[in-house]
Amino acid sequence: MKGKFITLEGPDGSGKTTVSLKIVQLLQQQGYKVMLTREPGGVDIAEQIRNVILDKKNTAMDAKTEALLYAAARRQHLVEKVLPALQQGYIVICDRFVDSSLAYQGVGRQLGIDKVYAINLFAIEDIMPDKTIFFDIDYQLGLQRIRKNERVSDRMDEASQDFHKMVYDGYLQICQKYADRIVKIDASQDVDHVVEAAMKEIKKVLC
Amino acid sequence: MKGKFITLEGPDGSGKTTVSLKIVQLLQQQGYKVMLTREPGGVDIAEQIRNVILDKKNTAMDAKTEALLYAAARRQHLVEKVLPALQQGYIVICDRFVDSSLAYQGVGRQLGIDKVYAINLFAIEDIMPDKTIFFDIDYQLGLQRIRKNERVSDRMDEASQDFHKMVYDGYLQICQKYADRIVKIDASQDVDHVVEAAMKEIKKVLC
Repeated sequence: MKGKFITLEGPDGSGKTTVSLKIVQLLQQQGYKVMLTREPGGVDIAEQIRNVILDKKNTAMDAKTEALLYAAARRQHLVEKVLPALQQGYIVICDRFVDSSLAYQGVGRQLGIDKVYAINLFAIEDIMPDKTIFFDIDYQLGLQRIRKNERVSDRMDEASQDFHKMVYDGYLQICQKYADRIVKIDASQDVDHVVEAAMKEIKKVLC
Repeated sequence: MKGKFITLEGPDGSGKTTVSLKIVQLLQQQGYKVMLTREPGGVDIAEQIRNVILDKKNTAMDAKTEALLYAAARRQHLVEKVLPALQQGYIVICDRFVDSSLAYQGVGRQLGIDKVYAINLFAIEDIMPDKTIFFDIDYQLGLQRIRKNERVSDRMDEASQDFHKMVYDGYLQICQKYADRIVKIDASQDVDHVVEAAMKEIKKVLC
Protein backbone atom coordinates (compact mmCIF):
# COMPACT_ATOMS: atom_id res chain seq x y z
CA MET A 1 0.00 0.00 0.00
CA LYS A 2 1.35 3.39 -0.96
CA GLY A 3 -1.03 5.37 1.28
CA LYS A 4 -1.62 5.51 5.02
CA PHE A 5 -4.74 4.41 6.83
CA ILE A 6 -5.69 6.46 9.92
CA THR A 7 -8.84 5.68 11.91
CA LEU A 8 -10.57 7.87 14.48
CA GLU A 9 -12.37 6.23 17.38
CA GLY A 10 -14.30 7.31 20.44
CA PRO A 11 -17.77 7.79 21.89
CA ASP A 12 -20.30 9.89 20.00
CA GLY A 13 -19.87 13.53 20.96
CA SER A 14 -16.10 13.15 21.33
CA GLY A 15 -15.54 15.65 18.51
CA LYS A 16 -14.19 13.24 15.88
CA THR A 17 -16.14 14.81 13.03
CA THR A 18 -15.20 18.44 13.77
CA VAL A 19 -11.56 17.57 14.34
CA SER A 20 -11.31 15.36 11.24
CA LEU A 21 -12.43 18.22 8.97
CA LYS A 22 -9.71 20.47 10.38
CA ILE A 23 -7.06 17.76 10.09
CA VAL A 24 -7.90 17.16 6.45
CA GLN A 25 -7.63 20.89 5.72
CA LEU A 26 -4.23 21.10 7.40
CA LEU A 27 -2.85 18.03 5.65
CA GLN A 28 -4.08 19.26 2.27
CA GLN A 29 -2.44 22.67 2.88
CA GLN A 30 0.76 20.76 3.48
CA GLY A 31 0.41 19.08 0.08
CA TYR A 32 -0.85 15.64 1.07
CA LYS A 33 -3.52 13.77 -0.89
CA VAL A 34 -6.19 13.06 1.75
CA MET A 35 -9.51 11.25 1.67
CA LEU A 36 -11.95 11.63 4.57
CA THR A 37 -14.64 8.99 5.02
CA ARG A 38 -16.77 7.46 7.74
CA GLU A 39 -18.47 4.26 8.85
CA PRO A 40 -20.99 2.82 8.66
CA GLY A 41 -21.66 4.00 5.10
CA GLY A 42 -19.44 5.83 2.69
CA VAL A 43 -20.57 3.94 -0.43
CA ASP A 44 -24.07 3.20 -1.70
CA ILE A 45 -24.46 -0.42 -0.53
CA ALA A 46 -22.94 0.40 2.87
CA GLU A 47 -25.33 3.36 3.21
CA GLN A 48 -28.26 0.99 2.61
CA ILE A 49 -26.89 -1.24 5.39
CA ARG A 50 -26.37 1.84 7.61
CA ASN A 51 -30.05 2.71 7.21
CA VAL A 52 -31.05 -0.75 8.45
CA ILE A 53 -28.65 -0.54 11.43
CA LEU A 54 -29.58 2.95 12.59
CA ASP A 55 -33.32 3.02 11.89
CA LYS A 56 -35.00 3.77 15.23
CA LYS A 57 -37.93 1.53 14.27
CA ASN A 58 -35.61 -1.53 14.31
CA THR A 59 -35.83 -1.97 18.08
CA ALA A 60 -36.04 -5.78 17.69
CA MET A 61 -32.52 -5.99 16.26
CA ASP A 62 -30.44 -8.72 17.89
CA ALA A 63 -26.88 -7.82 18.97
CA LYS A 64 -25.32 -10.42 16.67
CA THR A 65 -27.37 -9.20 13.71
CA GLU A 66 -26.06 -5.71 14.49
CA ALA A 67 -22.44 -6.94 14.63
CA LEU A 68 -22.79 -8.81 11.31
CA LEU A 69 -24.37 -5.77 9.62
CA TYR A 70 -21.53 -3.50 10.78
CA ALA A 71 -19.01 -6.03 9.45
CA ALA A 72 -20.89 -6.20 6.11
CA ALA A 73 -20.97 -2.41 5.74
CA ARG A 74 -17.26 -2.28 6.71
CA ARG A 75 -16.32 -4.84 4.06
CA GLN A 76 -18.12 -3.01 1.27
CA HIS A 77 -16.71 0.40 2.24
CA LEU A 78 -13.20 -1.04 2.49
CA VAL A 79 -13.30 -2.73 -0.91
CA GLU A 80 -15.01 0.04 -2.82
CA LYS A 81 -13.50 3.14 -1.24
CA VAL A 82 -10.66 2.69 1.28
CA LEU A 83 -8.48 0.18 -0.58
CA PRO A 84 -8.52 1.96 -3.95
CA ALA A 85 -7.54 5.24 -2.23
CA LEU A 86 -4.71 3.56 -0.29
CA GLN A 87 -3.47 2.00 -3.52
CA GLN A 88 -3.40 5.47 -5.09
CA GLY A 89 -1.28 6.81 -2.24
CA TYR A 90 -3.94 8.75 -0.33
CA ILE A 91 -3.90 9.32 3.39
CA VAL A 92 -7.29 7.84 4.29
CA ILE A 93 -8.86 9.28 7.45
CA CYS A 94 -11.76 7.08 8.50
CA ASP A 95 -14.22 8.09 11.21
CA ARG A 96 -14.78 4.72 12.96
CA PHE A 97 -13.50 1.28 11.91
CA VAL A 98 -13.07 -2.15 13.47
CA ASP A 99 -12.44 -0.85 17.01
CA SER A 100 -15.94 0.63 17.08
CA SER A 101 -17.35 -2.88 16.66
CA LEU A 102 -15.06 -4.24 19.39
CA ALA A 103 -16.22 -1.51 21.80
CA TYR A 104 -19.91 -1.24 20.86
CA GLN A 105 -20.79 -4.85 20.04
CA GLY A 106 -17.92 -6.71 21.74
CA VAL A 107 -18.20 -4.92 25.08
CA GLY A 108 -21.33 -2.70 24.96
CA ARG A 109 -23.52 -5.54 23.67
CA GLN A 110 -21.46 -8.12 25.60
CA LEU A 111 -20.70 -10.38 22.61
CA GLY A 112 -17.01 -10.57 23.54
CA ILE A 113 -14.12 -8.72 21.89
CA ASP A 114 -12.57 -11.89 20.43
CA LYS A 115 -15.76 -13.15 18.78
CA VAL A 116 -16.50 -9.78 17.23
CA TYR A 117 -12.89 -9.49 16.11
CA ALA A 118 -13.15 -12.89 14.36
CA ILE A 119 -16.10 -11.92 12.14
CA ASN A 120 -14.38 -8.62 11.39
CA LEU A 121 -11.23 -10.42 10.31
CA PHE A 122 -13.37 -12.19 7.71
CA ALA A 123 -14.43 -8.72 6.51
CA ILE A 124 -11.14 -6.80 6.59
CA GLU A 125 -8.59 -9.63 6.14
CA ASP A 126 -5.18 -8.10 6.89
CA ILE A 127 -6.07 -4.45 6.38
CA MET A 128 -5.50 -2.83 9.77
CA PRO A 129 -5.02 0.90 10.32
CA ASP A 130 -1.47 2.27 10.40
CA LYS A 131 -2.59 4.37 13.35
CA THR A 132 -5.79 4.72 15.36
CA ILE A 133 -6.53 7.83 17.40
CA PHE A 134 -8.85 7.34 20.35
CA PHE A 135 -10.73 10.51 21.30
CA ASP A 136 -10.88 10.05 25.05
CA ILE A 137 -13.84 11.77 26.66
CA ASP A 138 -16.14 10.90 29.53
CA TYR A 139 -19.16 9.20 27.94
CA GLN A 140 -21.56 11.48 29.82
CA LEU A 141 -19.87 14.61 28.49
CA GLY A 142 -20.08 13.04 25.01
CA LEU A 143 -23.81 12.43 25.37
CA GLN A 144 -24.31 16.03 26.61
CA ARG A 145 -22.53 17.34 23.52
CA ILE A 146 -24.72 15.25 21.22
CA ARG A 147 -27.85 16.62 22.82
CA LYS A 148 -26.66 20.18 22.19
CA ASN A 149 -26.14 19.38 18.50
CA GLU A 150 -29.04 19.55 16.12
CA ARG A 151 -28.33 16.07 14.76
CA VAL A 152 -31.35 13.78 14.95
CA SER A 153 -30.60 10.86 17.26
CA ASP A 154 -30.41 7.32 15.81
CA ARG A 155 -30.98 3.82 17.24
CA MET A 156 -27.46 3.62 18.71
CA ASP A 157 -27.64 7.08 20.36
CA GLU A 158 -30.82 6.00 22.09
CA ALA A 159 -29.24 3.02 23.87
CA SER A 160 -29.08 3.24 27.66
CA GLN A 161 -26.52 5.18 29.72
CA ASP A 162 -25.22 1.82 30.97
CA PHE A 163 -24.56 0.77 27.39
CA HIS A 164 -22.59 3.95 26.69
CA LYS A 165 -20.59 3.46 29.88
CA MET A 166 -19.71 -0.09 28.83
CA VAL A 167 -18.68 1.12 25.37
CA TYR A 168 -16.32 3.61 27.00
CA ASP A 169 -14.86 0.91 29.24
CA GLY A 170 -14.53 -1.24 26.13
CA TYR A 171 -12.49 1.43 24.40
CA LEU A 172 -10.12 1.56 27.37
CA GLN A 173 -9.64 -2.23 27.17
CA ILE A 174 -8.96 -2.02 23.44
CA CYS A 175 -6.44 0.80 23.94
CA GLN A 176 -4.50 -1.50 26.26
CA LYS A 177 -4.84 -4.55 24.02
CA TYR A 178 -3.63 -2.76 20.88
CA ALA A 179 -1.29 -0.26 22.51
CA ASP A 180 1.12 -0.33 19.54
CA ARG A 181 -1.54 0.84 17.13
CA ILE A 182 -3.90 3.01 19.19
CA VAL A 183 -2.98 6.33 20.75
CA LYS A 184 -5.25 8.10 23.21
CA ILE A 185 -5.75 11.87 23.10
CA ASP A 186 -7.66 14.02 25.58
CA ALA A 187 -10.80 15.07 23.69
CA SER A 188 -12.17 17.24 26.50
CA GLN A 189 -9.69 20.01 25.60
CA ASP A 190 -10.69 22.81 23.23
CA VAL A 191 -10.79 21.84 19.55
CA ASP A 192 -7.50 23.48 18.53
CA HIS A 193 -5.59 21.50 21.13
CA VAL A 194 -7.26 18.25 20.06
CA VAL A 195 -6.39 18.99 16.42
CA GLU A 196 -2.79 19.71 17.39
CA ALA A 197 -2.50 16.47 19.36
CA ALA A 198 -4.05 14.43 16.54
CA MET A 199 -1.79 16.06 13.90
CA LYS A 200 1.27 15.23 15.97
CA GLU A 201 0.32 11.55 16.02
CA ILE A 202 -0.54 11.44 12.31
CA LYS A 203 2.75 13.08 11.38
CA LYS A 204 4.65 10.26 13.13
CA VAL A 205 3.11 7.78 10.68
CA LEU A 206 3.82 9.95 7.65
CA CYS A 207 7.52 10.32 8.39
CA MET B 1 -36.21 -27.75 22.08
CA LYS B 2 -39.65 -29.30 21.92
CA GLY B 3 -40.11 -28.79 18.16
CA LYS B 4 -38.27 -30.08 15.11
CA PHE B 5 -36.30 -27.97 12.68
CA ILE B 6 -36.41 -29.11 9.03
CA THR B 7 -34.62 -27.14 6.30
CA LEU B 8 -35.08 -27.40 2.54
CA GLU B 9 -32.13 -26.78 0.26
CA GLY B 10 -31.39 -26.81 -3.43
CA PRO B 11 -30.95 -24.65 -6.52
CA ASP B 12 -33.66 -22.17 -7.44
CA GLY B 13 -36.25 -23.90 -9.57
CA SER B 14 -35.86 -27.19 -7.70
CA GLY B 15 -39.48 -26.98 -6.51
CA LYS B 16 -38.84 -26.34 -2.79
CA THR B 17 -41.61 -23.75 -2.50
CA THR B 18 -44.32 -25.80 -4.21
CA VAL B 19 -43.40 -28.95 -2.31
CA SER B 20 -43.14 -27.17 1.06
CA LEU B 21 -46.73 -25.90 0.79
CA LYS B 22 -47.98 -29.43 0.17
CA ILE B 23 -45.91 -30.86 3.01
CA VAL B 24 -47.27 -28.32 5.46
CA GLN B 25 -50.82 -29.16 4.42
CA LEU B 26 -50.23 -32.88 4.89
CA LEU B 27 -48.57 -32.46 8.28
CA GLN B 28 -51.35 -30.19 9.50
CA GLN B 29 -53.97 -32.72 8.34
CA GLN B 30 -52.13 -35.26 10.48
CA GLY B 31 -52.47 -32.98 13.51
CA TYR B 32 -48.99 -31.47 13.71
CA LYS B 33 -48.33 -27.82 14.57
CA VAL B 34 -46.29 -26.59 11.60
CA MET B 35 -44.67 -23.26 10.76
CA LEU B 36 -43.43 -22.62 7.21
CA THR B 37 -40.87 -19.87 6.69
CA ARG B 38 -38.07 -18.91 4.32
CA GLU B 39 -34.72 -17.18 4.10
CA PRO B 40 -33.51 -14.57 3.59
CA GLY B 41 -36.35 -12.65 5.24
CA GLY B 42 -39.26 -13.92 7.30
CA VAL B 43 -39.23 -11.04 9.81
CA ASP B 44 -39.17 -7.28 9.23
CA ILE B 45 -35.45 -6.58 9.84
CA ALA B 46 -34.42 -9.64 7.82
CA GLU B 47 -36.70 -8.52 4.97
CA GLN B 48 -34.90 -5.16 4.95
CA ILE B 49 -31.58 -7.03 4.69
CA ARG B 50 -33.07 -9.27 1.96
CA ASN B 51 -33.91 -6.17 -0.07
CA VAL B 52 -30.28 -5.01 0.09
CA ILE B 53 -28.98 -8.47 -0.89
CA LEU B 54 -31.32 -9.11 -3.81
CA ASP B 55 -31.63 -5.60 -5.30
CA LYS B 56 -30.48 -5.90 -8.92
CA LYS B 57 -28.97 -2.40 -8.72
CA ASN B 58 -26.42 -3.62 -6.15
CA THR B 59 -24.06 -5.06 -8.76
CA ALA B 60 -21.02 -3.74 -6.83
CA MET B 61 -21.69 -6.03 -3.86
CA ASP B 62 -18.57 -7.86 -2.69
CA ALA B 63 -18.89 -11.61 -2.02
CA LYS B 64 -17.93 -11.23 1.64
CA THR B 65 -20.46 -8.42 2.12
CA GLU B 66 -23.05 -10.78 0.65
CA ALA B 67 -22.03 -13.62 3.01
CA LEU B 68 -22.19 -11.33 6.07
CA LEU B 69 -25.60 -9.98 5.07
CA TYR B 70 -27.01 -13.49 4.68
CA ALA B 71 -25.63 -14.39 8.12
CA ALA B 72 -27.16 -11.22 9.61
CA ALA B 73 -30.59 -11.94 8.10
CA ARG B 74 -30.30 -15.57 9.27
CA ARG B 75 -29.54 -14.52 12.84
CA GLN B 76 -32.50 -12.15 13.07
CA HIS B 77 -34.93 -14.66 11.55
CA LEU B 78 -33.67 -17.40 13.86
CA VAL B 79 -34.01 -15.33 17.03
CA GLU B 80 -37.33 -13.69 16.23
CA LYS B 81 -39.19 -16.48 14.47
CA VAL B 82 -37.58 -19.94 14.35
CA LEU B 83 -36.46 -20.33 17.98
CA PRO B 84 -39.74 -19.18 19.57
CA ALA B 85 -41.65 -21.63 17.34
CA LEU B 86 -39.30 -24.50 18.19
CA GLN B 87 -39.69 -23.69 21.89
CA GLN B 88 -43.46 -23.90 21.46
CA GLY B 89 -43.17 -27.35 19.91
CA TYR B 90 -43.76 -26.46 16.25
CA ILE B 91 -42.29 -28.34 13.33
CA VAL B 92 -40.48 -25.50 11.60
CA ILE B 93 -40.01 -25.98 7.86
CA CYS B 94 -37.49 -23.44 6.59
CA ASP B 95 -36.87 -22.85 2.87
CA ARG B 96 -33.06 -22.33 2.87
CA PHE B 97 -30.73 -22.04 5.89
CA VAL B 98 -27.00 -22.28 6.55
CA ASP B 99 -26.29 -24.78 3.73
CA SER B 100 -27.41 -22.19 1.17
CA SER B 101 -24.59 -19.92 2.35
CA LEU B 102 -22.08 -22.78 2.21
CA ALA B 103 -23.11 -23.60 -1.39
CA TYR B 104 -23.73 -20.09 -2.76
CA GLN B 105 -21.06 -18.04 -0.98
CA GLY B 106 -18.66 -20.80 0.15
CA VAL B 107 -18.45 -22.56 -3.22
CA GLY B 108 -20.30 -20.39 -5.78
CA ARG B 109 -18.50 -17.22 -4.69
CA GLN B 110 -15.34 -19.21 -3.83
CA LEU B 111 -15.01 -17.91 -0.25
CA GLY B 112 -14.47 -21.43 1.09
CA ILE B 113 -16.98 -23.60 2.94
CA ASP B 114 -15.08 -23.44 6.26
CA LYS B 115 -14.78 -19.64 6.36
CA VAL B 116 -18.44 -19.15 5.54
CA TYR B 117 -19.38 -21.79 8.11
CA ALA B 118 -17.40 -19.90 10.78
CA ILE B 119 -19.29 -16.61 10.40
CA ASN B 120 -22.53 -18.57 10.32
CA LEU B 121 -21.66 -20.32 13.57
CA PHE B 122 -21.45 -16.85 15.13
CA ALA B 123 -25.00 -16.26 13.85
CA ILE B 124 -26.69 -19.59 14.64
CA GLU B 125 -24.62 -20.84 17.60
CA ASP B 126 -25.61 -24.47 18.15
CA ILE B 127 -28.94 -24.40 16.36
CA MET B 128 -28.57 -26.84 13.50
CA PRO B 129 -31.49 -28.46 11.64
CA ASP B 130 -32.71 -31.85 12.81
CA LYS B 131 -32.92 -32.79 9.14
CA THR B 132 -32.09 -31.08 5.86
CA ILE B 133 -33.65 -32.17 2.59
CA PHE B 134 -31.62 -31.42 -0.53
CA PHE B 135 -33.77 -31.07 -3.65
CA ASP B 136 -31.42 -32.56 -6.21
CA ILE B 137 -31.95 -31.19 -9.69
CA ASP B 138 -29.65 -30.35 -12.56
CA TYR B 139 -28.96 -26.61 -12.23
CA GLN B 140 -29.83 -26.01 -15.89
CA LEU B 141 -33.23 -27.62 -15.49
CA GLY B 142 -33.72 -25.44 -12.38
CA LEU B 143 -32.89 -22.28 -14.31
CA GLN B 144 -35.29 -23.31 -17.09
CA ARG B 145 -38.08 -23.78 -14.56
CA ILE B 146 -37.44 -20.29 -13.10
CA ARG B 147 -37.65 -18.70 -16.53
CA LYS B 148 -41.04 -20.35 -17.08
CA ASN B 149 -42.31 -18.89 -13.79
CA GLU B 150 -43.64 -15.37 -13.69
CA ARG B 151 -41.40 -14.46 -10.74
CA VAL B 152 -39.26 -11.40 -11.42
CA SER B 153 -35.58 -12.36 -11.34
CA ASP B 154 -33.32 -10.98 -8.56
CA ARG B 155 -29.57 -10.27 -8.30
CA MET B 156 -28.77 -13.89 -7.42
CA ASP B 157 -30.84 -15.37 -10.27
CA GLU B 158 -28.92 -13.18 -12.70
CA ALA B 159 -25.51 -14.60 -11.78
CA SER B 160 -23.70 -16.53 -14.52
CA GLN B 161 -24.37 -20.15 -15.52
CA ASP B 162 -20.89 -20.99 -14.21
CA PHE B 163 -21.89 -19.65 -10.80
CA HIS B 164 -25.02 -21.80 -10.72
CA LYS B 165 -23.00 -24.84 -11.75
CA MET B 166 -20.54 -24.21 -8.89
CA VAL B 167 -23.42 -23.81 -6.43
CA TYR B 168 -24.76 -27.19 -7.51
CA ASP B 169 -21.32 -28.78 -7.11
CA GLY B 170 -21.12 -27.08 -3.71
CA TYR B 171 -24.36 -28.71 -2.63
CA LEU B 172 -23.00 -32.12 -3.60
CA GLN B 173 -19.88 -31.48 -1.46
CA ILE B 174 -22.03 -30.40 1.48
CA CYS B 175 -24.25 -33.47 1.15
CA GLN B 176 -21.13 -35.62 1.55
CA LYS B 177 -19.70 -33.52 4.39
CA TYR B 178 -22.89 -33.56 6.46
CA ALA B 179 -24.23 -36.95 5.36
CA ASP B 180 -25.78 -37.60 8.79
CA ARG B 181 -27.97 -34.52 8.59
CA ILE B 182 -28.67 -34.01 4.89
CA VAL B 183 -30.72 -36.35 2.73
CA LYS B 184 -30.89 -36.00 -1.03
CA ILE B 185 -34.14 -36.47 -2.95
CA ASP B 186 -34.62 -36.54 -6.71
CA ALA B 187 -36.40 -33.26 -7.47
CA SER B 188 -36.74 -33.93 -11.20
CA GLN B 189 -39.64 -36.35 -10.52
CA ASP B 190 -43.23 -35.11 -10.63
CA VAL B 191 -44.34 -33.08 -7.62
CA ASP B 192 -46.36 -35.82 -5.92
CA HIS B 193 -43.37 -38.15 -5.87
CA VAL B 194 -41.11 -35.42 -4.47
CA VAL B 195 -43.66 -34.67 -1.75
CA GLU B 196 -43.87 -38.36 -0.89
CA ALA B 197 -40.06 -38.69 -0.67
CA ALA B 198 -39.78 -35.55 1.49
CA MET B 199 -42.60 -36.67 3.81
CA LYS B 200 -40.92 -40.03 4.30
CA GLU B 201 -37.72 -38.29 5.47
CA ILE B 202 -39.55 -35.84 7.73
CA LYS B 203 -41.51 -38.63 9.36
CA LYS B 204 -38.26 -40.32 10.40
CA VAL B 205 -37.38 -37.26 12.49
CA LEU B 206 -40.84 -37.05 14.04
CA CYS B 207 -40.85 -40.64 15.29
